[in-house]
Amino acid sequence: MTLLLWIPGALLMALSVYNFLTKKQETFKPIQSDYVGMYVCGPTVYDDAHLGHAKVYISFDIIHRYLRYLGYRVRYVQNITDVGHLLDSGEDRIEVGASRDKLEPMEVAEKYTTNYLRDMDALGVLRPSIMPRASGHIPEQVELVDRLIEAGYAYETNGSVYFSVEKLASYGRFAGRNIDDLMEGARIDSRSEKHNPLDFALWKKAEPEHIMQWNSPWSRGYPGWHIECTAMSAKYLGVPYDIHGGGIDNLFPHNESEIAQAEAAYGEGYANYWLLAGTLTINDVKMSKSLGNTVRIHEILQKEDPMTVRLLVLTGNYRSPLSYSEEALESARNGARRLTIARQKLMRYLEEKPSQRIVDHEDLDAELKDYRERFIEAMNDDFNTSRALGVLFDIAHQTNKVIDADATASSKLAGLEFLFHTMGDDVLGVSPRAAAHSDDVLQSVMDLIVELRSKLRSEKHYELADTIRSRLSKAGIVLEDGPQGSAWRIE
Amino acid sequence: MTLLLWIPGALLMALSVYNFLTKKQETFKPIQSDYVGMYVCGPTVYDDAHLGHAKVYISFDIIHRYLRYLGYRVRYVQNITDVGHLLDSGEDRIEVGASRDKLEPMEVAEKYTTNYLRDMDALGVLRPSIMPRASGHIPEQVELVDRLIEAGYAYETNGSVYFSVEKLASYGRFAGRNIDDLMEGARIDSRSEKHNPLDFALWKKAEPEHIMQWNSPWSRGYPGWHIECTAMSAKYLGVPYDIHGGGIDNLFPHNESEIAQAEAAYGEGYANYWLLAGTLTINDVKMSKSLGNTVRIHEILQKEDPMTVRLLVLTGNYRSPLSYSEEALESARNGARRLTIARQKLMRYLEEKPSQRIVDHEDLDAELKDYRERFIEAMNDDFNTSRALGVLFDIAHQTNKVIDADATASSKLAGLEFLFHTMGDDVLGVSPRAAAHSDDVLQSVMDLIVELRSKLRSEKHYELADTIRSRLSKAGIVLEDGPQGSAWRIE
Repeated sequence: MTLLLWIPGALLMALSVYNFLTKKQETFKPIQSDYVGMYVCGPTVYDDAHLGHAKVYISFDIIHRYLRYLGYRVRYVQNITDVGHLLDSGEDRIEVGASRDKLEPMEVAEKYTTNYLRDMDALGVLRPSIMPRASGHIPEQVELVDRLIEAGYAYETNGSVYFSVEKLASYGRFAGRNIDDLMEGARIDSRSEKHNPLDFALWKKAEPEHIMQWNSPWSRGYPGWHIECTAMSAKYLGVPYDIHGGGIDNLFPHNESEIAQAEAAYGEGYANYWLLAGTLTINDVKMSKSLGNTVRIHEILQKEDPMTVRLLVLTGNYRSPLSYSEEALESARNGARRLTIARQKLMRYLEEKPSQRIVDHEDLDAELKDYRERFIEAMNDDFNTSRALGVLFDIAHQTNKVIDADATASSKLAGLEFLFHTMGDDVLGVSPRAAAHSDDVLQSVMDLIVELRSKLRSEKHYELADTIRSRLSKAGIVLEDGPQGSAWRIE
Repeated sequence: MTLLLWIPGALLMALSVYNFLTKKQETFKPIQSDYVGMYVCGPTVYDDAHLGHAKVYISFDIIHRYLRYLGYRVRYVQNITDVGHLLDSGEDRIEVGASRDKLEPMEVAEKYTTNYLRDMDALGVLRPSIMPRASGHIPEQVELVDRLIEAGYAYETNGSVYFSVEKLASYGRFAGRNIDDLMEGARIDSRSEKHNPLDFALWKKAEPEHIMQWNSPWSRGYPGWHIECTAMSAKYLGVPYDIHGGGIDNLFPHNESEIAQAEAAYGEGYANYWLLAGTLTINDVKMSKSLGNTVRIHEILQKEDPMTVRLLVLTGNYRSPLSYSEEALESARNGARRLTIARQKLMRYLEEKPSQRIVDHEDLDAELKDYRERFIEAMNDDFNTSRALGVLFDIAHQTNKVIDADATASSKLAGLEFLFHTMGDDVLGVSPRAAAHSDDVLQSVMDLIVELRSKLRSEKHYELADTIRSRLSKAGIVLEDGPQGSAWRIE
């Protein structure tokens, strides 16, 4: 057994990703052979996370998980924006939340950071390695702004500092915007502090009523929104690093400005691969607060299993927009049910008839290897989760078939369980165990009930046996009778 | 119904607390009549939290909960120390964790902050309002150090800044230390940067190999340990504020130095009340890493119910040391069981025979009011949780008695449930529901089993009925037959 066999990354098939920087799909080559540095723009914590956040962060969770599956050590940095992200009105989102909730700004940030992590945990999103707060990195941002002034890319007016987009020929290239076009659409305000209406704030002098403010060489103030991501990704990953991710919504001006700041400060080369996740629409309309059609994650999780929400996101490619509708949800629900039934059947079967445990890809037979290769092929193709899920459904189908047809084929079943575990649990994070309404005690009690019912039936005590089925059904538990006895699942 | 009746704080009985600042028990008078600002020294996040942390943070959780119960709005700030807390060897604890876990320092801080919050959540400790990170407040600490130099209380040597304890006549008073005595025991090192061996670091110039460092007017370096608490409590609570809490372990030099810094920077008046929690010993030996007798919270929670751990802490006064032993644990386990059995009986009873719901203290009858007054009296006496728990056990005893004796006394039972809820759940955080092995599905399934068993017995199907009891017992569920039918509980 050599190390090569253990690391699927050593397979000949290579991961290729659509790189927004070059606008084409490329073979993924990290800077170090066994390590990936990844930065993903995190949430602004002034309100509860909604389904749009679920779409973005489940997408990068899959990417995070798959990179680990390929054998990479991943340092995944995701920031928490708790200052500087302004509304169109010029108000800081956190301060708006503070006045709404009647809390101190940092109480607001603490509350919604906690809620965000609660929602992500519930969705089975693995924690990033570092989650730096913007307000916790004022010195790093001040230093970077200083560097940009020194290098001639930024200027101060009345205590505020702006990035001069004209100084950087490449400004607009990443997002595919033309400066002249943008200029035509820009509002010219002669009282503006900016030399050019497209210039963006690196540091803002605070009005006295602005609660969050810090000292700087220019004024007591607060950082602009874009500067935090450049400063914190450089601090924790160094430049250049491998992957920068986020939602496509932030393409312009946020990502464009991040790149401009990095190029001006560090020279060319910031993140080598830019992966941007598609937006979520509700019945084909963009989800937004102003339209009043936002669906909060914790609300949907009161009705739906987290696995359903994951499946909903995974049915499309992470780059594509996702249309949320009752039909899409119903289809995800059905998918989750199919996977859960097959997996639970399988786990119960293997518990009762333990067979050789599969701990290595090499123990798989040819047919099972084929599933695995199809799975890796799909994921290697820019993380095509839709096709990868298809493979998982094939495995579920095969599981049902093997259990029903040949109750002695337990080594095949152990192999199927291994595939479920590595692909379903580890990479896609869709696992009936993660759904966990059931626990050990419930399992024991249900074993007893199933046994009682079978005994009652064998003693022709049919009325009581039927009562059991109908009462369980009311409690949301479905009994399924099969040749191997009865299995149960939570509806 | 007037507001007065709703706020127990309006009762004539007043909360009194032992104030370590004055060394006596005093009536608690917050600065604002309806608001309390409280700061508690939080953990250094370089390793998993142990039972000593449980002792301190459950203690302040009770204080937090009780202040809310009294009607106060509480802003509870608890810091996370992720830089500057050095070992005797001079190494930063976080960097030691980083080299041990082969992670970046901020990955270590992220990991153990997450673990700490996981453990605290599991113990039913309510989240503080703000949890500021030391590394996230460098500017605030630099400003405070600057202010101390300006005011003549601190001096710079070779890029490091020290607080001059001789400049502050009161240094040592809080912890009851005499400067002359301390000087006698101090090691004089002629190469030292300090003017006086008792002086403590406010800012340390970083060695090149020190990973965590920031710019400052004196050097690239990092803050001393004590400065973060003074800077962050002043930022989020203002000075003076109401309560400063922590473990008695940190009395000297940490708390003493905090007070010195505040007095030197802001004049007299920092925190008005100092509440310090007693230490935890294991079989009467202090728990410490070097003795190898630490018990991690997540380890003990694999075996024990969180309610047992809470009861263990609550059986003593928060200021007293707590001796952890198998006997103490067994006694807490028994207590948790007694409370759980009575409470579950009561909840089942009220579910089946819903009666008038008690939503107000005024709806309680005289006997129940007496429990409540004894509870408040105990808690008002410097948070005497041992006596308050005694009242809860009396309520459990009374619950069993009422249910067994008089099955129609449901309004009395509703009152008892109300007392359990307000005192047990809200204030002491000891609730069988918090223990939650059971969930709704298990509840329904167990209802069914209890019913089946009773039917089987009525049909003289004794063998099957007995099988049910013994199988449940194997699954850790105890059936208790009583005049009102069978109740069940998880062992």
